[in-house]
Amino acid sequence: MQALHQRKGREQNGLFLVQGAKLVEELLASDLVVRTIHATEEIASRLKNETVQVWPDHALDRMGTLESGNQVVAVVQRPRTGAIGSLEAGELVLALDGIADPGNMGTMLRIADWFGVRRLLCSPDCVEEFNPKCVQASMGSLFRVTVHRGVLSVELDRLRSAGAHLYAASMEGSNVFETPLPRPAVLILGSESHGVSAGVRALGARTIAVPRAGAAESLNVAMAASALCMEFTRRSN
Amino acid sequence: MQALHQRKGREQNGLFLVQGAKLVEELLASDLVVRTIHATEEIASRLKNETVQVWPDHALDRMGTLESGNQVVAVVQRPRTGAIGSLEAGELVLALDGIADPGNMGTMLRIADWFGVRRLLCSPDCVEEFNPKCVQASMGSLFRVTVHRGVLSVELDRLRSAGAHLYAASMEGSNVFETPLPRPAVLILGSESHGVSAGVRALGARTIAVPRAGAAESLNVAMAASALCMEFTRRSN
Repeated sequence: MQALHQRKGREQNGLFLVQGAKLVEELLASDLVVRTIHATEEIASRLKNETVQVWPDHALDRMGTLESGNQVVAVVQRPRTGAIGSLEAGELVLALDGIADPGNMGTMLRIADWFGVRRLLCSPDCVEEFNPKCVQASMGSLFRVTVHRGVLSVELDRLRSAGAHLYAASMEGSNVFETPLPRPAVLILGSESHGVSAGVRALGARTIAVPRAGAAESLNVAMAASALCMEFTRRSN
Repeated sequence: MQALHQRKGREQNGLFLVQGAKLVEELLASDLVVRTIHATEEIASRLKNETVQVWPDHALDRMGTLESGNQVVAVVQRPRTGAIGSLEAGELVLALDGIADPGNMGTMLRIADWFGVRRLLCSPDCVEEFNPKCVQASMGSLFRVTVHRGVLSVELDRLRSAGAHLYAASMEGSNVFETPLPRPAVLILGSESHGVSAGVRALGARTIAVPRAGAAESLNVAMAASALCMEFTRRSN
């Protein structure tokens, strides 16, 4: 189980951990395949699931990654996700280019799930979505949103050839309120520190900005995603 | 200086800390009154400011609150902020009701600063805006956005009597896209765990929601603020 605290162990075993009673309840309501659940007696009786094994607190503390309060740890099969294929009519996909922080990645999943975005396309250097901090921050949205991985410059070029419109969030972009937003569309969001990578910029996606009325130097990537998804949602109605 | 690591010491001394070279540069460009700046020789030569005192690294590590890399620590006078008074024509104010997390508070300041919201009205139980984690997360927006404190039920009732329109973010609210948003306006955002408090709910502010197209249980308060400020911005153009 300790091996699953690290990315390498998760990848080699094809497994990841889901922790916390609320999150495990959401997990059990999802399509994911649960191998085992390790829990305190109290949580086990609440979950009412035949795969639950009861353990004392100190054993759970070793199994889990949380600093304190490891009361339930589920071992789950990583879903096998293929290439992104083609977009559906009217679909909006978020493409994440080098998102490094697991908390930000989890928040992006949550934003996608709120706004009805069913699929993310992540560059190979994005933090792993099965990182425990990302799993926690996604608050269950990881179980509902599909994460594809791929080389963005290649995949986005292919999607565009198949009719998708590409937009890249950028502070220097055109005011999104004044920009047509036809779909199917991909909204590209760059890394926290470097923005969209050179290979992706070379695709010449239309750059769009959340208009700034004040003096803040930047919006963080999750704030920008929320604001831009808001406008995409409004246009689709 | 250690006393300023704690809220009590900051309040008793009327001072707070600003840390990190970039943030101190923004501080020096602001109207705030800087008492002293303690820095490494390298940062001191970069800042070119007569109040800078040079210290060795280990001394700075004791002065600062960061886990590592305390290279510059400025001691700053807390601005004296009076009651919120009345709203200007067309103004939008964010009212924060019990925001407990300093990172969220800093992010709210950054969102306000991006969208041109000049003033926040915070309930007495909101985390202190001079908390070092909030100062860091605000990325300089604390130096540009004014934070008023007050009992929200009293202040909001008074502002409404003076002509302000009150809106409360709520998942059960009406779709913001279908809601008129006349100004001057106050957008009320509740705490991370409890939402808007009972006293504020009793005011009967119009509740508005970011429409949900997916299955996420909630948007966090900063995501909701970003999305709703986006729509307020669009309507004001």
